[in-house]
Amino acid sequence: MTYLDLTHPVLAHMPAYPGDPLPEIRCIAEIETDGFTDHQITSGMHIGTHMDAPLHMLAGGARVTELEVAHFFGRGVLLTAKDRALIDVDVLDGVQLQHGDIVLINTGFHHQFWQPAYYANYPELSPALAEALVTAGVSMLGLDTPSPDRAPFAIHKILLRKPVLIIENLTNLDALAATLDGPTGFDIVALPAKFHTDAAPIRVVAVGRAMSRGQSREP
Amino acid sequence: MTYLDLTHPVLAHMPAYPGDPLPEIRCIAEIETDGFTDHQITSGMHIGTHMDAPLHMLAGGARVTELEVAHFFGRGVLLTAKDRALIDVDVLDGVQLQHGDIVLINTGFHHQFWQPAYYANYPELSPALAEALVTAGVSMLGLDTPSPDRAPFAIHKILLRKPVLIIENLTNLDALAATLDGPTGFDIVALPAKFHTDAAPIRVVAVGRAMSRGQSREP
Repeated sequence: MTYLDLTHPVLAHMPAYPGDPLPEIRCIAEIETDGFTDHQITSGMHIGTHMDAPLHMLAGGARVTELEVAHFFGRGVLLTAKDRALIDVDVLDGVQLQHGDIVLINTGFHHQFWQPAYYANYPELSPALAEALVTAGVSMLGLDTPSPDRAPFAIHKILLRKPVLIIENLTNLDALAATLDGPTGFDIVALPAKFHTDAAPIRVVAVGRAMSRGQSREP
Repeated sequence: MTYLDLTHPVLAHMPAYPGDPLPEIRCIAEIETDGFTDHQITSGMHIGTHMDAPLHMLAGGARVTELEVAHFFGRGVLLTAKDRALIDVDVLDGVQLQHGDIVLINTGFHHQFWQPAYYANYPELSPALAEALVTAGVSMLGLDTPSPDRAPFAIHKILLRKPVLIIENLTNLDALAATLDGPTGFDIVALPAKFHTDAAPIRVVAVGRAMSRGQSREP
């Protein structure tokens, strides 16, 4: 592994969380007639791979523009939680979390992204697991599902109060697991578009340790 | 320096390239009435700090979704070109470019981002400088101006044909320069939103070398 993209592409009329508007992508300039190409996107902020900032669930919470960029870089920790309705603290067995980690949970649900079941049947996190992530001081939690919970969103609120920023709708977590000997051995860079909003599209890349060292070589 | 954000925030009705639509940000859900916050953005792709992919200027060129993520990480090289109408190859004097570098040019124009002069008076790159960047095999060119040229966009085409991806409307380049002893000593991570379009909003972060080494430590 060198770099692995964990991000779904944003496509016109891709599936959205139930009740959310579908995204639209319109070509507004073409090379033949205008000399260049341009597109206009109309989209809610919770489409595809995106990050929730505190304002999504907490009145007066921070917007994406108000977060320190240091939050978006960290040691990656990949946990596995397949075939479960509830993801509980036992997924942390044998894992030593560090302050600033970016924790990803591979439920395998990313394979169902285009199917109706994806937004209906996703597993939730237990309050105990959310509290354990907060206590460990992790920077971000990334899921290959639409959400860590359902209304009234108690888990979102536990996480965003700290904040542990939440990345939803990741993909390629099985591909990431296949490059690793255990839960660690990679870094995560997860940079959200700098929109003045409660959430934003995010690009999430796993960086293999060998390449990360390569980046820091002197000229 | 540890991490320095080089990205303008995307705000409602921020300035746009002449002829482009202004962005709109609408609050479509509120905590008091809906239990959560959501926003909808309508925007062209060349707003604020963004990346041009080849399709922006080349028929049949790659979209943002079709680019390898390895392009978005590289050694940073900060060149200075203030008070010039034309930015020529002499900005490379004394600089040894490497394959995969991400080259930023500090014109100082980022201080004028909110003023009408920003989109009217920006300096252009010479064809010789564009060709030199292509020959060196740099991954990306980042500018604190709206564009490396004007219609018919000959410089865009030289760069995007390789491609050297183009980042426009950077900010904080004077702040970056103040942390450095020379043109190098930092890495750039520049991750565009994964939109299936000719260009996309991008988050650009300069990473100090000491922190980059810190990231790659073993657990």
